[in-house]
Amino acid sequence: MAPRIVIVGAGFAGIEVARKLGRAGLPVTLIDRQNHHLFQPLLYQVATAALSPADIAEPIRKMLRRSPSVEVVLGDVVGIDRATRTVSLADGRTFACEILVLATGATHSYFGRDEWSAFAPGLKTIEDARRIRSRLLLAFERAEMSADPAERKRLMTIAVIGGGPTGVELAGSIAELARYTLARDFHHIRAETATVLLLEAGPRILAAFPDALAAYATAKLRNLGVTVRTHCAVEHVEDGRIVAGGEEIGVGLAIWAAGVRASPLGVLLGVETDRAGRIRVGRDLAVPGLEHVYALGDIALTPDAHGTPLPGLAQVAKQQGEYLGAALVAKIGRGETAKPFAFKNRGNTAIIGRHAAVFDFGWTRMRGWLAWAFWALIHVYLLVGFQHRLMVAMQWLWRYVTYERGSRLIAENSGAHSPPG
Amino acid sequence: MAPRIVIVGAGFAGIEVARKLGRAGLPVTLIDRQNHHLFQPLLYQVATAALSPADIAEPIRKMLRRSPSVEVVLGDVVGIDRATRTVSLADGRTFACEILVLATGATHSYFGRDEWSAFAPGLKTIEDARRIRSRLLLAFERAEMSADPAERKRLMTIAVIGGGPTGVELAGSIAELARYTLARDFHHIRAETATVLLLEAGPRILAAFPDALAAYATAKLRNLGVTVRTHCAVEHVEDGRIVAGGEEIGVGLAIWAAGVRASPLGVLLGVETDRAGRIRVGRDLAVPGLEHVYALGDIALTPDAHGTPLPGLAQVAKQQGEYLGAALVAKIGRGETAKPFAFKNRGNTAIIGRHAAVFDFGWTRMRGWLAWAFWALIHVYLLVGFQHRLMVAMQWLWRYVTYERGSRLIAENSGAHSPPG
Repeated sequence: MAPRIVIVGAGFAGIEVARKLGRAGLPVTLIDRQNHHLFQPLLYQVATAALSPADIAEPIRKMLRRSPSVEVVLGDVVGIDRATRTVSLADGRTFACEILVLATGATHSYFGRDEWSAFAPGLKTIEDARRIRSRLLLAFERAEMSADPAERKRLMTIAVIGGGPTGVELAGSIAELARYTLARDFHHIRAETATVLLLEAGPRILAAFPDALAAYATAKLRNLGVTVRTHCAVEHVEDGRIVAGGEEIGVGLAIWAAGVRASPLGVLLGVETDRAGRIRVGRDLAVPGLEHVYALGDIALTPDAHGTPLPGLAQVAKQQGEYLGAALVAKIGRGETAKPFAFKNRGNTAIIGRHAAVFDFGWTRMRGWLAWAFWALIHVYLLVGFQHRLMVAMQWLWRYVTYERGSRLIAENSGAHSPPG
Repeated sequence: MAPRIVIVGAGFAGIEVARKLGRAGLPVTLIDRQNHHLFQPLLYQVATAALSPADIAEPIRKMLRRSPSVEVVLGDVVGIDRATRTVSLADGRTFACEILVLATGATHSYFGRDEWSAFAPGLKTIEDARRIRSRLLLAFERAEMSADPAERKRLMTIAVIGGGPTGVELAGSIAELARYTLARDFHHIRAETATVLLLEAGPRILAAFPDALAAYATAKLRNLGVTVRTHCAVEHVEDGRIVAGGEEIGVGLAIWAAGVRASPLGVLLGVETDRAGRIRVGRDLAVPGLEHVYALGDIALTPDAHGTPLPGLAQVAKQQGEYLGAALVAKIGRGETAKPFAFKNRGNTAIIGRHAAVFDFGWTRMRGWLAWAFWALIHVYLLVGFQHRLMVAMQWLWRYVTYERGSRLIAENSGAHSPPG
């Protein structure tokens, strides 16, 4: 009988492992806290009202509908017993397995200042995106209400903390929202005069990209009206106020895009992790010393052939998922050992705004209009499911023509807005 | 100088008044608790995962962008001072006006049992729809988790309380969701065997429709697997259990579609209301005894030419909004008095499911495939804004071909699901 395989996490890595194993008819239990797989690279577009949550989320059960050997479980893993090879959930259920695959990804890291999270939300889930969208739109609504010019200026100051791809994409998209969409909406404020700050502690934004592309991105962001500050570490965050680079700044909203740490499953497993909580694995994605336990995607620290760790990218997670799925099928079905995982760089990308993106393929680079078109094409193609692809493509096209954003809903449950009575 | 007009509520009635006055360049303040206008007739489709919230909601500011004389205010009206003609908001702001238009619609009525609302949510807002969608999908997820057949049966019992158009539409849509979409998703449960109950206290469902159409709807609902019970009043509601028609029924979810009451602005105004809290107005929509105060839509009780009250329908609200807007323009601009409001019946409709709808035009009736196609056409046409129309039409078409529902997101903030850590 084939061994029972438990996969924890249905992100880019976990879903691919499940697909490959499911296609081979192997018995799999796939556990996730959400009922949907999320296309995280476009989450910033939900946060900035360009796409709806359902455009970039797909029910996990639907994705694996044609794989009857894969059982999908909605649940929160709170314990892993290495001795009995048992995974336990918050609701008390347990799942025994012969092979355990950990793919729970990463979450925000506030570098030990978790109290900042209430005032500078990060962007990892649909709920995060809804929260940011509501607070962003509410900041402009409140500025419109205010008669005090200083308070207006504060409310119309949006600080994005962290100059990686997510920070760049958020800052660019917020600047475009203010400049082209909200600009036409208000009477008392001029939304296009909003201050969008991109604050980066290091010497430049997009540290993972070549200098020339980072310089291009900086110039393009400035064209959009974004104030890019480097060497500007955030020292304090509270409600409506941050301190960065020694300066106190009143903000209508701060968004955290500065750091990630791995999901805490490495701790549950009781194995060695790096400072970011990532589980060190070999090039076969197995956890050294633990038979039949694998980790991949953002929760894992995987060396390439030269021993350099691979970056925490969706394409790495996806390729690792495909690799591990195929490797397990080969091992279980035919007793074969797969060659070590080798990452194929499909191009590292960040989008700044309309017509402006950067692409780094290693062997060549691309920027500007062509990079933007290429980015759009690839992301539409990658989006899971035909309906989503078509819808997203059409919404983009529509927005392109009209500068319109269709999802400008303020609907956060958390009080700022009283429920209708 | 033109008098300052304050409109409270940006539903079908209020938005039309604002549009007409805005087009005439009259100074208007439009106050709403939400930043979006909602196309309520399709809200049940958001609750049953067929449409996304943004598909049926449009930013109010965007709708009135071309009317610079209309100021849009996000706020919650908590007081009306008749003497000074001042409206005050929860945040302390006040707005003085010469003419006051009340159009805040209706909300759920639990007939004095407001404690039921926690266990049997109603459907009036986007948040309501999200809540119902999440709880509905979670009920099936929990049934899938459960090993106890009785508990499974309970979780897979969905009770819709109230047999009006909303109840019929919810019950039909939930039955289709279970039968055609979720049926393919689970391993342990057979979602298509879910029990969908439609409970009506009166002698038949769709009381406002002719007998023959109600009988047709009942037959069609039964074909879909809905259990329709009439003469079945709900006596008690608690978590996971209701008592209806003397029988105790375990439920995975109960939804309240049984009663509405007017928004409490009639009380704030201190005028005579009917039992449902509606403000009695004349055929000119003015509140008797109060100069320059108007009420329309679901908050108002309007007599037709024979003194019979008009029903609480979107088309009544919309026509009243158009009427009042034009009447005020005529009055302010040219000192003319408009003829009394006359409702033109565009057809009362309810949709049961694919290919099945009923239409009552008064002078004729329609049902079945043709009524369904007509319903779809009209609703697509009515949806505000070109993008929405196109998107919604395409999603319908897609669902029609595939039996798919794209928006199956479980993402309620309220705890059932722990936030990702």
